[in-house]
Amino acid sequence: VISGILFGVISLAVLEFVSLSGIKIRAPLLIISHGLLIGAWFTFQQPPLAVVVVLVIVSNGIFYLIAENVREGLDSFIRDISVQVFVVFYLYFPLYYILELVRLGQLREYGAHYFFFLVAVIAVGDSGAYFVGRAVGKRRIYPVASPNKTLEGLVAAVTTGALAGWGATAVFTVDRIPAPVALLTGGLLALVSQVSDPVESLFKRSAGKKDSGSILPGHGGILDRLDSYIFCAPLFYYLIIYFWH
Amino acid sequence: VISGILFGVISLAVLEFVSLSGIKIRAPLLIISHGLLIGAWFTFQQPPLAVVVVLVIVSNGIFYLIAENVREGLDSFIRDISVQVFVVFYLYFPLYYILELVRLGQLREYGAHYFFFLVAVIAVGDSGAYFVGRAVGKRRIYPVASPNKTLEGLVAAVTTGALAGWGATAVFTVDRIPAPVALLTGGLLALVSQVSDPVESLFKRSAGKKDSGSILPGHGGILDRLDSYIFCAPLFYYLIIYFWH
Repeated sequence: VISGILFGVISLAVLEFVSLSGIKIRAPLLIISHGLLIGAWFTFQQPPLAVVVVLVIVSNGIFYLIAENVREGLDSFIRDISVQVFVVFYLYFPLYYILELVRLGQLREYGAHYFFFLVAVIAVGDSGAYFVGRAVGKRRIYPVASPNKTLEGLVAAVTTGALAGWGATAVFTVDRIPAPVALLTGGLLALVSQVSDPVESLFKRSAGKKDSGSILPGHGGILDRLDSYIFCAPLFYYLIIYFWH
Repeated sequence: VISGILFGVISLAVLEFVSLSGIKIRAPLLIISHGLLIGAWFTFQQPPLAVVVVLVIVSNGIFYLIAENVREGLDSFIRDISVQVFVVFYLYFPLYYILELVRLGQLREYGAHYFFFLVAVIAVGDSGAYFVGRAVGKRRIYPVASPNKTLEGLVAAVTTGALAGWGATAVFTVDRIPAPVALLTGGLLALVSQVSDPVESLFKRSAGKKDSGSILPGHGGILDRLDSYIFCAPLFYYLIIYFWH
């Protein structure tokens, strides 16, 4: 069930991503079916991930071999095939780690508490960066990708994220980890969140778009809600696996 | 040792691919190190493949976040980052299945005989397609990608490939599979070889280049030697795993 919901939400994010970045996708059904394959691997461990990678490459190759026969010119071919592969590994793959987090939590009888921990840290860290950055932010870190992000905001994100991580271990039943580990995890995730988000912004800006909400007014902003999780969900999963005992 | 040689050969193929397709690679070292990661996974099963995929995505994201800050304009960003990810999964990943084939052969005490089987089938099938296509070929299948490939050549490839597969089981000690299975495997691999090769040609033609040998005269043609293996090596590996008992 979670896997199905996740697939739907990520697919909407993919749709939004495609729309925001102005990329013309030649075979949307191929991307959706590759998303399903990745979902199947995360859910059932079948087919093996190596088979999924091979299928993504081969099916795109065959699709374009047929498609280019009936088209004028090959000028956008390299970009088109590369983007179709990229979107699958950039959105479906990392975001499916949310499922891994929920499942690992259930396995250890914490339900979705790992996921709640991550949501709390990212939400608090992003808010910290936003308010402090707006109040006292001067030194821009990514003038091209995210002009609103400042060094002051980054420091605030790490600080508030660390505190949120510490607080979250008190609120949600998760592994009894020492306070320093909770603080470090929270700070690190908040830091990476401040990297994950502007990478996504590059795609928007590359297409000359600045506002995400106006493109899909109905359900706008799904991708903006999820962009921090692209890097943070896998990172948090491996932090738990390797460092939370 | 085999893994190291394979890494070197594939890296040369990647170099040639990049040169042929006219793609400007912004971070070649990133591609090489991702190739090493994929090689490590095939060789040692470590780090887990999922970690490799995450690392490829995250390191490219961080690289471009930094790189775009000091550059004018973002117009080619989406293509650049996508191609950097694509090349890794299109060349290193499928071609490393050659290592899997050799290793599976060693495990079953056939040495590199699985690999020799594949080489024989592809070489014979390609030659069959070439000579028959040139002699009687009329109906072009991929006018855009490979104008020399004809339906007559394709039929010849499948026929001679099937016979080569049958013959190869007699020459090389491999699993005692019945003649129909050897014929089917040979025919199927020769067929897929006739698909794998023109997909690679699309990249050349997209950049307006027709002759591969002239670009890297010293060691030219590595990619042209390997292009059939991109789709055939993984396919043959799974055919053995699932159907050759």
